[in-house]
Amino acid sequence: MSVLNITFCCTNTAPEPWLAGLHTTLPHAEVAVWQPGAAPADYAVVWQPPQQFFDEQPQLKGIFNIGAGVDALLKLRLPPQVVVVRLEDAGMAVQMAEYVCQAVIRHFRDLEAYAADIRAGHWTYHAPRQRSDFAVGVMGLGVLGARVAQALAHFEFPVNGWSRTPKALAGVRGFSGAAQLDDFLASSRVLVNLLPLTPDTTNILNRERLSRLQPGGYVINVARGAHLVDDDLLALLDNGHLAGATLDVFRTEPLPSGHPFWRHPKITLTPHTSARTLRETSIAQIVAKLMALQRGESVAGLVDVGRGY
Amino acid sequence: MSVLNITFCCTNTAPEPWLAGLHTTLPHAEVAVWQPGAAPADYAVVWQPPQQFFDEQPQLKGIFNIGAGVDALLKLRLPPQVVVVRLEDAGMAVQMAEYVCQAVIRHFRDLEAYAADIRAGHWTYHAPRQRSDFAVGVMGLGVLGARVAQALAHFEFPVNGWSRTPKALAGVRGFSGAAQLDDFLASSRVLVNLLPLTPDTTNILNRERLSRLQPGGYVINVARGAHLVDDDLLALLDNGHLAGATLDVFRTEPLPSGHPFWRHPKITLTPHTSARTLRETSIAQIVAKLMALQRGESVAGLVDVGRGY
Repeated sequence: MSVLNITFCCTNTAPEPWLAGLHTTLPHAEVAVWQPGAAPADYAVVWQPPQQFFDEQPQLKGIFNIGAGVDALLKLRLPPQVVVVRLEDAGMAVQMAEYVCQAVIRHFRDLEAYAADIRAGHWTYHAPRQRSDFAVGVMGLGVLGARVAQALAHFEFPVNGWSRTPKALAGVRGFSGAAQLDDFLASSRVLVNLLPLTPDTTNILNRERLSRLQPGGYVINVARGAHLVDDDLLALLDNGHLAGATLDVFRTEPLPSGHPFWRHPKITLTPHTSARTLRETSIAQIVAKLMALQRGESVAGLVDVGRGY
Repeated sequence: MSVLNITFCCTNTAPEPWLAGLHTTLPHAEVAVWQPGAAPADYAVVWQPPQQFFDEQPQLKGIFNIGAGVDALLKLRLPPQVVVVRLEDAGMAVQMAEYVCQAVIRHFRDLEAYAADIRAGHWTYHAPRQRSDFAVGVMGLGVLGARVAQALAHFEFPVNGWSRTPKALAGVRGFSGAAQLDDFLASSRVLVNLLPLTPDTTNILNRERLSRLQPGGYVINVARGAHLVDDDLLALLDNGHLAGATLDVFRTEPLPSGHPFWRHPKITLTPHTSARTLRETSIAQIVAKLMALQRGESVAGLVDVGRGY
């Protein structure tokens, strides 16, 4: 039996702890950081690899993508026979639920305004908002979107969900397809974007669509920067239709200095930190899926390359 | 049949919408704001009433307290036959769950540090913390504490609970009584205080007890300011044993200007806003309980005056 060969090609990721973890879990496999000219491998663990990587590794059987989004990966020419496997959760879903819930709660409960008052030395009162007026619409009901919707329902917000094809989730009012997008938006006060980035969803959050949100609307983008038309968001914040936004993702990351998002008083920014890949959980998933593929079994999380997610 | 007479005596509360709501729900009752010398009433709706109120209304059958805590009320001399009724939830439990979860999440996810970096124009990375290292201990497992524990468990934090008498809650590691308090504290990284204020719990969060929290501990006080010894918290923040605190309640409210909590870099303050009484829900509860008392039925939420909550 030949030795299993795994190559690791992840941009902006310290390789040592990943290699150590894979070695420990798969002691009989060869695991190494990819370098140009490296030996052919059976499987690859990747994050934003260069085209050269795939050009030199046409024999790959499987690719494990350690981030939740495969949009950057699918822009490359991949070996035709390869299967692309996404980690389904790896601790990301609960992180995303945390991030989105704290953003919704801070807006709903006026906590930014209270913090500003406290900084100014003022003990103040803001009239509580009505929960029934704060329907939250979640766009994209995959593993992350479904978990976020469930967490929002736990806090008794009215929750709307929109997805390409109909999905039934407990406690979520479902909308689907292009035909129901306007109704979904008009029924929502807060919009949470968790769509995959595909040609169909690029620039989906534009002026026309964001204008359909209820007055005083709030936008939370935790998917990809290219979903959102930056200038359209700014125009709707400045004309008062939207009350604010929490943004974790941007068309260019790091967000270029001088971009108007940096200091906009109605925008809360974080540096793409809403859901981090957690190494130990990810390694356990990669190993389990890799062994299933080796046994010829099907695995969950296979990416449909044509569909784009 | 004599007309039911209800008097309203609530400090810092605009009476008009409460009176309008009670009139609408109980059209045959007389409802009025109490003034010195007012006619005797059957029931009272109160928040921080003066002693004179009870001295002039010895015939009262029942008192409805519109805040969650009855500690201030029970320091007064009450008519001996009166029943004191607390509203059990009135929308407060979900608010408390929101407030506490956002405080825990902001600390766990380093969101204050990220916000400071963004204000300085820096796109940074902080290594994620381990959820398994962030056990949250909830002191007090009444309606509010139990709801908060449930919400924290929803985000997959390890949750400990401490109460005077043993209580079994799903997903919560239970501790009870004085004998298990040290174990509870030593098992917790974050402490959430939701105890009732009684002679037994006044000053319970002192230097000795807070020192037993795990290093890097974090304190969230959403019960009463008198549970916490201010100087002991400051000493443990300044010597580094505690990483920070979120405080919504204070020994004197509004918090006096010049108090060191106002500008302490490790303390997040809010002006007693963690859970507001929601008027419509409260009025519906008051009316339902009042009518049950009139029919001679038992009602939930009766305060044990001797026990203090």
